[in-house]
Amino acid sequence: MDKSGYIFTYRIEVRDYEIDAEGIVNNANYLHYLEHTRHEFCNKVGFSFAQMCEKGITPVLSRVEIDYMTPLRSGDVMVSCLNIKRKGPRFIFYQDVFRESDESPVVKAVVTVVSLKNEKLSRGDEIAEAFKEYLM
Amino acid sequence: MDKSGYIFTYRIEVRDYEIDAEGIVNNANYLHYLEHTRHEFCNKVGFSFAQMCEKGITPVLSRVEIDYMTPLRSGDVMVSCLNIKRKGPRFIFYQDVFRESDESPVVKAVVTVVSLKNEKLSRGDEIAEAFKEYLM
Amino acid sequence: MDKSGYIFTYRIEVRDYEIDAEGIVNNANYLHYLEHTRHEFCNKVGFSFAQMCEKGITPVLSRVEIDYMTPLRSGDVMVSCLNIKRKGPRFIFYQDVFRESDESPVVKAVVTVVSLKNEKLSRGDEIAEAFKEYLM
Amino acid sequence: MDKSGYIFTYRIEVRDYEIDAEGIVNNANYLHYLEHTRHEFCNKVGFSFAQMCEKGITPVLSRVEIDYMTPLRSGDVMVSCLNIKRKGPRFIFYQDVFRESDESPVVKAVVTVVSLKNEKLSRGDEIAEAFKEYLM
Repeated sequence: MDKSGYIFTYRIEVRDYEIDAEGIVNNANYLHYLEHTRHEFCNKVGFSFAQMCEKGITPVLSRVEIDYMTPLRSGDVMVSCLNIKRKGPRFIFYQDVFRESDESPVVKAVVTVVSLKNEKLSRGDEIAEAFKEYLM
Repeated sequence: MDKSGYIFTYRIEVRDYEIDAEGIVNNANYLHYLEHTRHEFCNKVGFSFAQMCEKGITPVLSRVEIDYMTPLRSGDVMVSCLNIKRKGPRFIFYQDVFRESDESPVVKAVVTVVSLKNEKLSRGDEIAEAFKEYLM
Repeated sequence: MDKSGYIFTYRIEVRDYEIDAEGIVNNANYLHYLEHTRHEFCNKVGFSFAQMCEKGITPVLSRVEIDYMTPLRSGDVMVSCLNIKRKGPRFIFYQDVFRESDESPVVKAVVTVVSLKNEKLSRGDEIAEAFKEYLM
Repeated sequence: MDKSGYIFTYRIEVRDYEIDAEGIVNNANYLHYLEHTRHEFCNKVGFSFAQMCEKGITPVLSRVEIDYMTPLRSGDVMVSCLNIKRKGPRFIFYQDVFRESDESPVVKAVVTVVSLKNEKLSRGDEIAEAFKEYLM
């Protein structure tokens, strides 16, 4: 886990209620972790999810590809990392999550987000402006 | 939505607590719906998740690809459909979800599951046996 | 479980992702079940949660007392029952959940809801009007 | 919020996926926060939930009373505080949550936990031993 390769990293602790009957974090929770990381990144660049809403901008997930590699368990801590590319109206988040204790890869995901403006698909220029120093 | 093209379909109602601040079902809940559909399918073929656990078999998600097409809202009902292919030790679930009211596609997902036996990757023969009439 | 003692009953199936590491439904999910039951009741009386929102009415939980009696497990089905009393601006929901297979009591809850109108505490008269045939 | 009145305090950030259609944290998530706080307390005293499970001890919720006072929103941080009393086989957690920014009370809860040993109700002596410096 070479953090220098990512524009943003965020530390998240597993909460026991996220563990399912198999004794591991349920697969759906990783989408929560990934979303939470993107929102924290937006906070960092000064254009929070709440601020987007106020401007009539609604980011919407259009596609997720996620590979599950090492399951997380009770007591684990993860480091959630991201990079971003823009492709036309789409923002592609490359999101890698590692287990903090031994740097094992936990999940690798590619998440495509588009944005609606007043409920129509938009080019996402205001988001791109906020992200501009960070786009690959 | 031609149900005849699927080996299993399952009706799921949106519950209001699944709606997020955008007024639509939060993206992570679709992984819950997809998992619930797979488990109901396993019940139908007579090899439930609980029975797998008792035999030391643990199905584990290895990859999900999901395209989000139409967001679901409060009051919506979905029809969740699936087909399955086996590729070596992997079971590939092709899972399509439609909105019941107008048959709009909601999500299309390809979900890859492997199975552990006594915590080691297995060929999944017992699962394949249970699924045998249904594999594409 | 004498259903005749309740003004509304609703059948809910446990979904496996609601099970936690103890092999039983996680305690927080019962608040989801109870909320879902109240919303379905509102649908039945023709004043849905979505319709309330459109009129600027926001029901808000003010207190929950819940006794956990029999834990639910994978494959269980519950019957969720309710009665309602009005006390000034408060609506008190008496909510009892039973396991369908053997009528064991699962949880007994008393849930107090108030309603905001345009973000101020209101008397809840529109809700009381919709509920009028059902209040104890 | 006088932290000196509590034996344990824990800081938790709201995650945006916990917000529901009303723009506030959904009521059920507070049970998650309360549980997470109890588990972190158990970690602190050196008898984690995972360690309990290994010894055949299963803590089980028997009752929750929760008053909702100030709703949390996107970006909020809470300070979750607790005290504990033992009453025979029952451990009573007095759990108060405050909004960090202005110390507003968020929820006040009284949570009763009993413990099973090898699936039978136990006196909870091993838990009491771990908690002994902290019981009121």
